Amino acid sequence: MKKILIQLDTDPHPSSFDAIAAYDAGVDVVLAFGEVTAENLEGVVQGAIFPRGPDGLANTAFWVGGSKVRDGEAVFAAARKLFFEPFQPSIMLDSDGSNTTAAAAVARVRGATKLKDGRAAVIGVGPVGLRTAELLRREGAEVTLLTFPPDVMEGKHRRASGIDVAREAGFEVVEPSSSDELDAALAGHAAVFAAGPAGTQILRRSGWAGAEGVKVVVDYSAAEPVGVEGVDRTDNLEEENGVSKLGALAVGGPKMKLQKRCVERMFEDKGTVMDLEGVYAVALEAL
Amino acid sequence: MKKILIQLDTDPHPSSFDAIAAYDAGVDVVLAFGEVTAENLEGVVQGAIFPRGPDGLANTAFWVGGSKVRDGEAVFAAARKLFFEPFQPSIMLDSDGSNTTAAAAVARVRGATKLKDGRAAVIGVGPVGLRTAELLRREGAEVTLLTFPPDVMEGKHRRASGIDVAREAGFEVVEPSSSDELDAALAGHAAVFAAGPAGTQILRRSGWAGAEGVKVVVDYSAAEPVGVEGVDRTDNLEEENGVSKLGALAVGGPKMKLQKRCVERMFEDKGTVMDLEGVYAVALEAL
Amino acid sequence: MKKILIQLDTDPHPSSFDAIAAYDAGVDVVLAFGEVTAENLEGVVQGAIFPRGPDGLANTAFWVGGSKVRDGEAVFAAARKLFFEPFQPSIMLDSDGSNTTAAAAVARVRGATKLKDGRAAVIGVGPVGLRTAELLRREGAEVTLLTFPPDVMEGKHRRASGIDVAREAGFEVVEPSSSDELDAALAGHAAVFAAGPAGTQILRRSGWAGAEGVKVVVDYSAAEPVGVEGVDRTDNLEEENGVSKLGALAVGGPKMKLQKRCVERMFEDKGTVMDLEGVYAVALEAL
Repeated sequence: MKKILIQLDTDPHPSSFDAIAAYDAGVDVVLAFGEVTAENLEGVVQGAIFPRGPDGLANTAFWVGGSKVRDGEAVFAAARKLFFEPFQPSIMLDSDGSNTTAAAAVARVRGATKLKDGRAAVIGVGPVGLRTAELLRREGAEVTLLTFPPDVMEGKHRRASGIDVAREAGFEVVEPSSSDELDAALAGHAAVFAAGPAGTQILRRSGWAGAEGVKVVVDYSAAEPVGVEGVDRTDNLEEENGVSKLGALAVGGPKMKLQKRCVERMFEDKGTVMDLEGVYAVALEAL
Repeated sequence: MKKILIQLDTDPHPSSFDAIAAYDAGVDVVLAFGEVTAENLEGVVQGAIFPRGPDGLANTAFWVGGSKVRDGEAVFAAARKLFFEPFQPSIMLDSDGSNTTAAAAVARVRGATKLKDGRAAVIGVGPVGLRTAELLRREGAEVTLLTFPPDVMEGKHRRASGIDVAREAGFEVVEPSSSDELDAALAGHAAVFAAGPAGTQILRRSGWAGAEGVKVVVDYSAAEPVGVEGVDRTDNLEEENGVSKLGALAVGGPKMKLQKRCVERMFEDKGTVMDLEGVYAVALEAL
Repeated sequence: MKKILIQLDTDPHPSSFDAIAAYDAGVDVVLAFGEVTAENLEGVVQGAIFPRGPDGLANTAFWVGGSKVRDGEAVFAAARKLFFEPFQPSIMLDSDGSNTTAAAAVARVRGATKLKDGRAAVIGVGPVGLRTAELLRREGAEVTLLTFPPDVMEGKHRRASGIDVAREAGFEVVEPSSSDELDAALAGHAAVFAAGPAGTQILRRSGWAGAEGVKVVVDYSAAEPVGVEGVDRTDNLEEENGVSKLGALAVGGPKMKLQKRCVERMFEDKGTVMDLEGVYAVALEAL
């Protein structure tokens, strides 16, 4: 029986990245559906659950992706509501790669510095930033979320909706009014994660190289200019004056490995639910 | 040469059920097209006919599906018009699963009671109901079609357009004004088929358990509450007081088997036309 | 690692022809995207470039197709702009089959008559006509492009936008006002190509059978009535009174073979760019 992955994608063109990753993880067929919403997915989901019977769902799994994380969460929740005993297939959420990216980075950093009972900072309250913060908290760190300093955003800065989400989730959010303020706010954080927009340097070297107590700095942004001055895309925990640097490509490699491992896992264990927690559990094992 | 099935589907998201069933029937590749209409299919159909030459069409077949049966019939007819000697691929119509569902049910019932020269009743004039009626007539039964009694429809009852189609096709259509009238109208029918909407009980136990002459009762509706009181979804011709009961899942299993067999047949015999008649012929062999 | 072809198609329904040809050329998976434009392809292209790393692009290639050649050219150019070292996958442009069709025909004719320093005529300034003219010029022929004579177009004739494109590309364009004028204009051309609309005879027998110096006549139009009176669709350089006739199906066979060979080539040589020139180079080798 072929391994079939049902790709529920919220964009008009379903993610080619996710489809290729699935094939490379041993999936035989990806059935891709675009413009999927919480409202229009019933036919696709039920049509995929029934033809092979309950046992056949060991070989049919669901993947929720697309560029919009909120829409993906709604699709993920709506799809799961359509599952019922004994029709319980595996399903994974990874809109915009946010779960696998955050999980890969935190799992790498966890091996490089002590997170438990320490302080960690995440710059950026978008999907990747928020998921990073959640995983750091799960590891026992005290987390500070910070918004981008206005001077690096070239007037594009506006109050991100993620701030409210972060505060509702119990995080402290700091809004530095300048790069100088950002630098100062990072002191005392053992791990600093920069989750900024593509092609924008959001953190200067002075924010981490001279900062008291900073042991690891992570950049998620691979497009030039990268997000953190002084961190190369390929830096793989290279040390500079006592700070380990993790660049975007050194996150991307483990992220890719993790994504494939998660897909494999869905077909090994029928009924696997791969939300942020599930993805992170695989990251701790596999990376 | 890979076996390729061209899925012409009238819905925006082509049926995942049909695609999975095709893969499980040994198809190597399903090329799925959504929002197919009789007007826009020329490019897709001609593009699939020509690249392998006439002989290659042994490995290229067409599947017409989607939730709207009328639209599917139009697509089926329009696609067939584009075939010409010697470019004659196989093609099958099964919008909403109506052909395979009706054929599977009638083929099962045929083994359980004598249809020829007997009377049979079908409640519901939608696609599945109408196809069931056609197959029963083909078996030599005198068929009564009945609409749903208004009291079970909770005000949703309206005159179905299927009534006119049914009458044009030469069927007698009875419109009971209540469940009591429905019960009474079923007397004397050896086989009773309930083709109602999902999650709606359209026939009470009194309509079949006490009815004179009823030998078999069939329910097509798997969602709770099922369509016929006293018929369990898994009833597989279980007998109760002389009446054999066939539940929706006991129709669904053979329907699935039949659907796969029809797909296989299309690739065994180039030029196979699987309309209701073709599907039923396979059902008589395979079920 | 599976061979994956990313089908970037400008039509709502991606070409079934191109997908089937790709599978028959040994591709394992075609990821088809419809309604692709130069503006909306960034996500699809980048998503396909990154997951396998630079070396993995030996097994990921791009195909640009669809019925609109101008749109295809824009998509081809925009996709190539997103490639960068070391992420250089193979990519091919063949909207409406125009590159493979023209290349197959000219390669066939090249073996049948001397093109270098001779004169060649192409009737039709659409995509196939223009590409044919470019390849003939590349072979050293002096090329005349001609528009369709109004009397064969049944009032549908209008000044084609291709005329300006042709003149900008340095071609002489003749606009005959009648079939008689067309006949007269063809004298002295060793090779005559008819690239007319489907089901329309654009050239009479008198245009080639009696014309001085005509050695080969080619018809691209397979639908009845074919484009050139006296040339059968299956004529495979059959000679009639000293003129070799090449019918549309005798172009179509080599075109199909060429298309598959080009796809194979893309997966043999990472970074192959299959524009008209690239396709023609393969045609000279493979046909």
